[in-house]
Amino acid sequence: MELENLAEPTPIRRARADQARLVADVLRHQIHAGGYPDGLPPEATLAADFFVSRNTVREALTTLKDEGIIERGTKVGTHVAIRKYDHGLDALVGLKETFKGYGDIRNEVRAAMTVAAPPSVASRLQLPAGERVVFVERLRYLGDLPLSLDMTYLARDIGEAVLEHSLETNDIFALIERVIGGPLGSASLAVEAVPADAHSAAILAVPDGAATLLLERLTHLDGGRPVDLEYIRMRGDRITLRGNLLRGST
Amino acid sequence: MELENLAEPTPIRRARADQARLVADVLRHQIHAGGYPDGLPPEATLAADFFVSRNTVREALTTLKDEGIIERGTKVGTHVAIRKYDHGLDALVGLKETFKGYGDIRNEVRAAMTVAAPPSVASRLQLPAGERVVFVERLRYLGDLPLSLDMTYLARDIGEAVLEHSLETNDIFALIERVIGGPLGSASLAVEAVPADAHSAAILAVPDGAATLLLERLTHLDGGRPVDLEYIRMRGDRITLRGNLLRGST
Repeated sequence: MELENLAEPTPIRRARADQARLVADVLRHQIHAGGYPDGLPPEATLAADFFVSRNTVREALTTLKDEGIIERGTKVGTHVAIRKYDHGLDALVGLKETFKGYGDIRNEVRAAMTVAAPPSVASRLQLPAGERVVFVERLRYLGDLPLSLDMTYLARDIGEAVLEHSLETNDIFALIERVIGGPLGSASLAVEAVPADAHSAAILAVPDGAATLLLERLTHLDGGRPVDLEYIRMRGDRITLRGNLLRGST
Repeated sequence: MELENLAEPTPIRRARADQARLVADVLRHQIHAGGYPDGLPPEATLAADFFVSRNTVREALTTLKDEGIIERGTKVGTHVAIRKYDHGLDALVGLKETFKGYGDIRNEVRAAMTVAAPPSVASRLQLPAGERVVFVERLRYLGDLPLSLDMTYLARDIGEAVLEHSLETNDIFALIERVIGGPLGSASLAVEAVPADAHSAAILAVPDGAATLLLERLTHLDGGRPVDLEYIRMRGDRITLRGNLLRGST
């Protein structure tokens, strides 16, 4: 890499590991953006594109291979092994709505019952502790691909009405809106990267400790009443969250 | 857990591993919301709160301990080991602005130089491939805590002007706005959970493969010109992204 330094008195020549990480970052995003449908270019081409050595390219490709994003064969070249799907961060939409262009979302309902709400769940839903709420756990597939494991607590009146409909083929958002006869209001969202515990890993078919996106989402009716508290574990290798930010006053 | 089933003909008694994961999820969010500053309640209290057995509580606490979130001692009880910080998803703000209530953000500048833009970077910044851009890599600390590793590509005119200011103590957003004499426009954001590669893990002081949040953020000037492309790796155990969603038309 040809360097020209501006801020420091002496030029910095970057370590190969730094350069390889950078190449891996850029390639990862290109792959996820749908680049390289016919496979990645040869190492020599990538080296020239990124102004780095072939060893650096090889190191970057090893990182992506370890993440399961690409597959490499001596004869067949480098292929994209996994497709990653975008999930919007700008609006409140369910998985089925989100992926309607990509394929069918199918839900395996692992639990659907009433439970006594633990204090913190009750508090988020503005209910007395111990009040019964409806609990639903779903493993959600896009076609045959497990994408996310969703645990949902619903206020009992809403939840019992939702359970009269098919959870296998509908988003819970859509069912709530059918039940209340109008649109939902806003949701507050928290996003974390957490390692998959052994049990979630087995259900999502990823290795123990794999990076997952954990979303906590509390959705309110239009009038402000919180009715739907969800803990959603998304496979980190399958889903990218995308949104837009506006510069506000600081 | 007392169960009452609505959707299925026979009641579902949930496996302990499912219940433990649920308890861990709820506790994790309470801890991150600043709950339990004086340590967690005893196992028996948690078992009563969550309507589960003490063995289930123990299993949940083991998960949180493995994640490094709590520490347990036979004499001293269960303490919160790590504090997690919120980063907004609603507006475009830098780390220093975000954390101004919590402590000082300090940046270790690991690289600051011009590089020839790889094709995909050039394309995001709407420049010809190979055009020189300014590249900055910073390890960002809140006090003594490494929070994130940020790699930034800046359009050369903006970047060279930014490098005339102190990168150690300022957000790049603030410097760009100083340089252009006005506010930035909007940014597009992608959020992923990725395992830390060996090199990033060493820099961020986390184990190899630890879950990290990877943000790709492309920021535009008010007129729409893209000038700032960043790849930000945040420690998954330190940062929660928070925002609000509105229900739009589907």
